[in-house]
Amino acid sequence: MTTVALIGVTGYAGGELARLLLRHPRLQRLTCYLRDGQPVRCLSELYPEWRGVVEAPCRPLSVQAVAEEKPAIVFLATPAEVSAELVPELVEAGLRVVDLSGAFRMGVEQARRWYGLDGAAVRLLEKAVYGLPELGARLAGARLVANPGCYPTAVLLGLQPLLEAGWVDLDRGIVCDAKSGVSGAGRQPRAETHFVEVNENFRAYNLFAHRHEPEILSRLQLSDPAQFIFTTHLLPLERGLLATLHLWLRPPRTAAEVEQLFRSYYADRPLIRIWPAGTVPSVRHVVRTNFCDLGVATDAEGRRLVVVSCLDNLGKGAAGQAVQNMNLMLGYSEDEGLR
Amino acid sequence: MTTVALIGVTGYAGGELARLLLRHPRLQRLTCYLRDGQPVRCLSELYPEWRGVVEAPCRPLSVQAVAEEKPAIVFLATPAEVSAELVPELVEAGLRVVDLSGAFRMGVEQARRWYGLDGAAVRLLEKAVYGLPELGARLAGARLVANPGCYPTAVLLGLQPLLEAGWVDLDRGIVCDAKSGVSGAGRQPRAETHFVEVNENFRAYNLFAHRHEPEILSRLQLSDPAQFIFTTHLLPLERGLLATLHLWLRPPRTAAEVEQLFRSYYADRPLIRIWPAGTVPSVRHVVRTNFCDLGVATDAEGRRLVVVSCLDNLGKGAAGQAVQNMNLMLGYSEDEGLR
Amino acid sequence: MTTVALIGVTGYAGGELARLLLRHPRLQRLTCYLRDGQPVRCLSELYPEWRGVVEAPCRPLSVQAVAEEKPAIVFLATPAEVSAELVPELVEAGLRVVDLSGAFRMGVEQARRWYGLDGAAVRLLEKAVYGLPELGARLAGARLVANPGCYPTAVLLGLQPLLEAGWVDLDRGIVCDAKSGVSGAGRQPRAETHFVEVNENFRAYNLFAHRHEPEILSRLQLSDPAQFIFTTHLLPLERGLLATLHLWLRPPRTAAEVEQLFRSYYADRPLIRIWPAGTVPSVRHVVRTNFCDLGVATDAEGRRLVVVSCLDNLGKGAAGQAVQNMNLMLGYSEDEGLR
Amino acid sequence: MTTVALIGVTGYAGGELARLLLRHPRLQRLTCYLRDGQPVRCLSELYPEWRGVVEAPCRPLSVQAVAEEKPAIVFLATPAEVSAELVPELVEAGLRVVDLSGAFRMGVEQARRWYGLDGAAVRLLEKAVYGLPELGARLAGARLVANPGCYPTAVLLGLQPLLEAGWVDLDRGIVCDAKSGVSGAGRQPRAETHFVEVNENFRAYNLFAHRHEPEILSRLQLSDPAQFIFTTHLLPLERGLLATLHLWLRPPRTAAEVEQLFRSYYADRPLIRIWPAGTVPSVRHVVRTNFCDLGVATDAEGRRLVVVSCLDNLGKGAAGQAVQNMNLMLGYSEDEGLR
Repeated sequence: MTTVALIGVTGYAGGELARLLLRHPRLQRLTCYLRDGQPVRCLSELYPEWRGVVEAPCRPLSVQAVAEEKPAIVFLATPAEVSAELVPELVEAGLRVVDLSGAFRMGVEQARRWYGLDGAAVRLLEKAVYGLPELGARLAGARLVANPGCYPTAVLLGLQPLLEAGWVDLDRGIVCDAKSGVSGAGRQPRAETHFVEVNENFRAYNLFAHRHEPEILSRLQLSDPAQFIFTTHLLPLERGLLATLHLWLRPPRTAAEVEQLFRSYYADRPLIRIWPAGTVPSVRHVVRTNFCDLGVATDAEGRRLVVVSCLDNLGKGAAGQAVQNMNLMLGYSEDEGLR
Repeated sequence: MTTVALIGVTGYAGGELARLLLRHPRLQRLTCYLRDGQPVRCLSELYPEWRGVVEAPCRPLSVQAVAEEKPAIVFLATPAEVSAELVPELVEAGLRVVDLSGAFRMGVEQARRWYGLDGAAVRLLEKAVYGLPELGARLAGARLVANPGCYPTAVLLGLQPLLEAGWVDLDRGIVCDAKSGVSGAGRQPRAETHFVEVNENFRAYNLFAHRHEPEILSRLQLSDPAQFIFTTHLLPLERGLLATLHLWLRPPRTAAEVEQLFRSYYADRPLIRIWPAGTVPSVRHVVRTNFCDLGVATDAEGRRLVVVSCLDNLGKGAAGQAVQNMNLMLGYSEDEGLR
Repeated sequence: MTTVALIGVTGYAGGELARLLLRHPRLQRLTCYLRDGQPVRCLSELYPEWRGVVEAPCRPLSVQAVAEEKPAIVFLATPAEVSAELVPELVEAGLRVVDLSGAFRMGVEQARRWYGLDGAAVRLLEKAVYGLPELGARLAGARLVANPGCYPTAVLLGLQPLLEAGWVDLDRGIVCDAKSGVSGAGRQPRAETHFVEVNENFRAYNLFAHRHEPEILSRLQLSDPAQFIFTTHLLPLERGLLATLHLWLRPPRTAAEVEQLFRSYYADRPLIRIWPAGTVPSVRHVVRTNFCDLGVATDAEGRRLVVVSCLDNLGKGAAGQAVQNMNLMLGYSEDEGLR
Repeated sequence: MTTVALIGVTGYAGGELARLLLRHPRLQRLTCYLRDGQPVRCLSELYPEWRGVVEAPCRPLSVQAVAEEKPAIVFLATPAEVSAELVPELVEAGLRVVDLSGAFRMGVEQARRWYGLDGAAVRLLEKAVYGLPELGARLAGARLVANPGCYPTAVLLGLQPLLEAGWVDLDRGIVCDAKSGVSGAGRQPRAETHFVEVNENFRAYNLFAHRHEPEILSRLQLSDPAQFIFTTHLLPLERGLLATLHLWLRPPRTAAEVEQLFRSYYADRPLIRIWPAGTVPSVRHVVRTNFCDLGVATDAEGRRLVVVSCLDNLGKGAAGQAVQNMNLMLGYSEDEGLR
């Protein structure tokens, strides 16, 4: 009987993860753990809309209680500082962990700077696998998987084939203009997520100061980080993320050639969809799925390229990717429970 | 008594223009002309929400009827092919014209290609003034003003100070990622503007095929058009346009220096607002105004720059700018009726 | 091998129905038929977001082609006038039909008046079963099922237990104020469904002239139709329908008593959820489900009652209910493929 | 020189009120007072979008400071408990007050129960004028005006002509189903106003427990409060309120007769607009105005009547009405600064 545990289920990613795990055909049992001492006994008390659909028990969190249940995987959908504290204890207890926070996604220096990591958490960094399966993550034996951020997932999947092929004119640069729905900003009520502030509005935020930028750069391995400009924006919608990647090709290529490059690169990956050259996906095509959709367009001379990379920030950008990582850690088919 | 005429009042830009003209303190009379033979006698039949607020007579269009009224300015909020046909007759009749369509915004070759211009309309192109006052348009004696497109207005206002100062590293390039609300797509019902298609969606469109790209390029005067990448996206909101301009500075500059450059460049222009360095405007700040708001951010080394340029696509991006142009044509203060 | 056919798949209800049928565990094959001669070979040409998820062949419609395939059920998601023409031929060919249009939902007089029914279609009316399973529809042997409208489903499920129990003070009256999302207005682009008209707007429509009113009245069997007031409104959202039912109780009852009445009435029905007395469902709780959620509140004296009835207009209000009806026609469990 | 003071400018109603007062042609000076010790010196620090448009000084609140400035009117856009404390002091200091909170809108018993009023505030209740000008409020000499709630304004304006004419069948009852945009719920971030909770959602709230119900009942003067059912709902939009009023006419009347009744009743009131019989206003028609729009429809027999009453909850429902009240207190034209 395969059982899994989920720590943190009150946020948007945690809620989505519970939903996905409960309908996964290979799992028999999910237990949820709450940190804050809420007297919640089962999921439908938190999510009344799930009554009669899915259900799972909720318990107060203790690492010992989790360990005694011997779950195949423990998921953490917790803030980075909570993950930094809990993950070392869970790994020490012999459990395999998928952490959805940013704590374990970068190198020591960046993790210290952006997430204040120290102590036992720092020592775990080198063991952590960056869980982006389509870019070669070795998940079969992983004990700790750092589930990638939503923006990095979309950006890296859209750029890596081009960079590895050497098609990008890095003397010019790469501009990634990314836009995300509001669920990416978390469930905590803040002025920035008040309906009246978001609705009928659109804004750029955290310019040159988004912590997903170092996460992306740590994977891109550019010779100069200033070759890359990354901007993020808030869309007035619930779910969905679209990254518009702008770059120059050297030598020129047709959109069909770029499409073919992507098709080859992702040939066996069931959760990447390549659009016909000249057409691009939109948010609506991927919401409530675990797909990352990719489409490309070039100018008539094939010198300028735009890649549109599109996913659901709670799906392939968070909870869905966590399930995908679990599938590969446990030897299941990559897309099981995700279609 | 200053009277003006408006041809085309059923679209979003035309409706907004009527509203602005009717509350303009220097105008005594507005007459609207409809092309399609609708038996409409006054504006509130088209816009019931204006009953008791503003009113103007509507008449079937004939160039002779317009000419007999001797309006100080004739505005056209009509499709480009209609403007191409009407504007030569109106100018011939001695009237001064502000045309909101794209017909007269570019050179002969581009106007032929993108708007199918020919005949008398082509001969008028060299007389047409591109009506972007802050970039030096000579409006005092203009007989035909081509009111700029919404995207070009935002992009050119955000780039021109930097390009004229020679601060942009053109060996790298300029990326303009622009996003507009749905009113920019017109009032005609189409699948693309159906609520269910737009709502909770976000998409890129017309990649490397938007006719505002040649309009922008015809003003930027780059040595190589491929230095510039321009993408457009549809936001799920009614009004507002935000362009995120990404570029590299050579040599490096601080955000404060860039802010200062913008402040100097637009020193006497009442409808441009410069935000403090490191802060940027959002759509909400400019909706229902005639402002173009500009904000800048750089990386720590001052090598990479992002300019956020924000306006209301129906305000400074269309109807408001048309009124601003009229003000300057008639010798009024630039922002009269626009604050 | 159980196969089904679907005529009309380009509208919102038809698209949703295809999606539900394709993931139904008891069905092996779905064929879609298009009326308009579009050269479409498979569903993902119409719905690119389904690529890699679900697929089904599309064919040009002919009744003979449908009949030769011997589908267990033929669904029609077509306008009423199309259904009125096709259904008699399909029934004549020995096929069992679930029609989502309004053509066969009412008596002869009303069907003539509201849907212009005549000829063979009129003669079929008495054979048609009104497909609202929870109100006692006899579906096992049905040859023609008229799938109820979205508003009637929500209203009837919320009122029938109270009326049958005789708890409603009919000397006063019943007021049903209903609100629906925009997908209920169909996919055809019209001024009324343009994003700019719907967004940030809310309006009442078809007052005392909605064809769902006679559909509801034909089931309620009130002594005087003027005991019932029914208003409909358009919500600026894609999916979901909420009906607020206002009435007076005679004699007074507590909310708990009303809750208990509903629980008893719907005791064995898996797709009706009753909320604890004093709490009510909202649109978010039922969107993308086939549930109808019901909640009640009374004043302190138990004289005034409000019932909130909530469903997805494309789910329990259309496509989901069609699948539920099919399940019962074919002897499957009522909620198979719907949870 | 006419000066006015505004206490509380950080909420939505206070912000809107500042905006209206600053463009009012008869006012020369506005001073804003903040309660919370924020170091804010002028309005554009709170509302950057107003830079270059309007400006006013902000000061820390003290009753003495307000009194010394001798404003013609003091507005309070503060929570009821704050108003209950400040208003007695301000009136004592000889100032004329318009209070936007609910504190002074009802009788002693209800004000104690719903707003916890006591002490000096209770003693002021009998002096307070309920500021709904179109229903006969005597504002010329008023020292304290209780500005009505948004729902009561819409409901009372829609019902009072019918009740006074004796046309309503009160043996049946009146059902008011009201819906409001989110700005009515205040600027304070809460789970209920988080974008993700409101967007694509619609819900009823405070059933039989909304404090606007006693406010309405205290003006309607029904023989039995149970003749009236009042429900409130939250719309996924920023501004606007629509109340659908359902009732039975005795004897029957045509919609044209009801329209005429409304036209007579509101004959001289510039801020009430009556729609032609059979047509009804929608939210979009009144947003950003100070109008209350009224439209009616009846069934064919004239027995059942629906009145749609529509206003902007921040306009005629709050700040606009406060300005209207000020106009009448100071002897200006009722709609000055409001068109």
